[in-house]
Amino acid sequence: MKLNLLSQRIFMARPYFGPVLERRRYAFSSSASAPTWEGGVSMVQGASRGIGLEFVRQLLERNDKGYIVATCRNPSGAPGLLELKNKFPERLDIHQLDLTVESTMEDSAKSIIDKYGSLNLLINASGVLSIPNAMQPETTLSKVQRSSLLLAYDINAVGPILVIKHMWPLLKAGGGSGTDKDFAVVVNLSARVGSIGDNSLGGWHSYRASKTALNQLAQNVAVEFARKKDPIICILLHPGTVDTDLSKPFQRNVPKEKLFTKEYSVQKLLSIINNTKRSDNGKFFAWDGQQIPW
Amino acid sequence: MKLNLLSQRIFMARPYFGPVLERRRYAFSSSASAPTWEGGVSMVQGASRGIGLEFVRQLLERNDKGYIVATCRNPSGAPGLLELKNKFPERLDIHQLDLTVESTMEDSAKSIIDKYGSLNLLINASGVLSIPNAMQPETTLSKVQRSSLLLAYDINAVGPILVIKHMWPLLKAGGGSGTDKDFAVVVNLSARVGSIGDNSLGGWHSYRASKTALNQLAQNVAVEFARKKDPIICILLHPGTVDTDLSKPFQRNVPKEKLFTKEYSVQKLLSIINNTKRSDNGKFFAWDGQQIPW
Repeated sequence: MKLNLLSQRIFMARPYFGPVLERRRYAFSSSASAPTWEGGVSMVQGASRGIGLEFVRQLLERNDKGYIVATCRNPSGAPGLLELKNKFPERLDIHQLDLTVESTMEDSAKSIIDKYGSLNLLINASGVLSIPNAMQPETTLSKVQRSSLLLAYDINAVGPILVIKHMWPLLKAGGGSGTDKDFAVVVNLSARVGSIGDNSLGGWHSYRASKTALNQLAQNVAVEFARKKDPIICILLHPGTVDTDLSKPFQRNVPKEKLFTKEYSVQKLLSIINNTKRSDNGKFFAWDGQQIPW
Repeated sequence: MKLNLLSQRIFMARPYFGPVLERRRYAFSSSASAPTWEGGVSMVQGASRGIGLEFVRQLLERNDKGYIVATCRNPSGAPGLLELKNKFPERLDIHQLDLTVESTMEDSAKSIIDKYGSLNLLINASGVLSIPNAMQPETTLSKVQRSSLLLAYDINAVGPILVIKHMWPLLKAGGGSGTDKDFAVVVNLSARVGSIGDNSLGGWHSYRASKTALNQLAQNVAVEFARKKDPIICILLHPGTVDTDLSKPFQRNVPKEKLFTKEYSVQKLLSIINNTKRSDNGKFFAWDGQQIPW
């Protein structure tokens, strides 16, 4: 995939994430007069590989400011993350976080409270589609199994929502004044196959249903942020079909020009995140900025 | 709630479920020349009380033909069902079926194969919203818990889809020629709060997300039925807010005219089922026949 160098240059030329990335040291203060620092604090949940790891890399390499908290279930088994930690020891923290264990989310939140006091961006990037010998995307109803449905739901829908729950106070603190240019952003990686309206092919029951549920849960979160006038928006993004371990076994029928590199997809997604407005709260965008129906 | 007696009379005057309820004794034969009997076989899953029990009652009392298989987790604790069994010993079978145990679905399917050989109508009527001391509809993200999310998903989304999986061959046999007037129907009780597009209030995370996922899974089933040219349609119905044990703790803010009796709601839903067309496959209707957005 050839990158569009012009748009890449434009992307890199402007400060990443604009005013959203103002860092507030004093936890849970959203007062406009609170001290601010340049740069901000972003959390990438599900950062050991694939799109999550690429988010961490671009957030570090495309900016010379800002702090990243990268989480995964088993940091010692995440060589890509450890490599970035060596390169950016001051700007990258790695937290062990298991999507099925809420106490690991609490621990991560406490650690961020102690060190930074706020979060400006949370990216839920984790996701499971298949596990060798345990879970395969279903080609027919006959192959649907309870264990796969529950596992996909647990990882793709339940976990991300619980992470938002635990990071909520930090995001409130990071969202600042909540004006049109000053809010925190929660991003959930969903998938076009999670759209019911767009479902004309069927199959992939466990994965589809979990992403559809994630869409509803994110919408619920967005409604509550708006009702409480929290300085946070919650959006859903479809990254396209990206050449990662997740999609590897299922790339055969994907036309070459529709199989994106991680670099390209994340560049596109960061561009969307970078340009969000408060009115985007609760929306579901594809990598190209098009809204996807529910 | 006063019933509209005129429409009730019309409803009762025409043969319930029309041509769909032709009963085919020879299992798995969908040949148009297979012998047929008047009356048909309907399964109501989640029939111990509430809307499910009312479906069984009306299917028995509003018709003098047709056989009903009613399932619930604990038949001996379902006095309403046992009472109907006394009244209609020949037309009603009660099967023990636990939505979390696939072998009970297999057992039920085997028993239907042996006795009837086909199914014309499957109604997934089970649903959980709250369980005293275990699960409460969430009023805010702060109260969302993994256990509730998983439990609601298991009962409201996973169980119903697995039941369809196991009844699929019976429905194929019951769907007959699959012409516009000769097909089997799968009905899933969903809920308007499962609509993402209609979600402006938030809350009820576990219940909402499970019903949204059910919508996607039912859509997946509908797509596969269509692709395989199976003589079956799969639809979703919203019963309105009905005065049942499920809604009892949450009726306080429901205007009296919007709180339906079970009798009224099921009468409306049966009218929709009775009038389905093949082109309704994959649609989501409210009790009044209006389509609900995803």
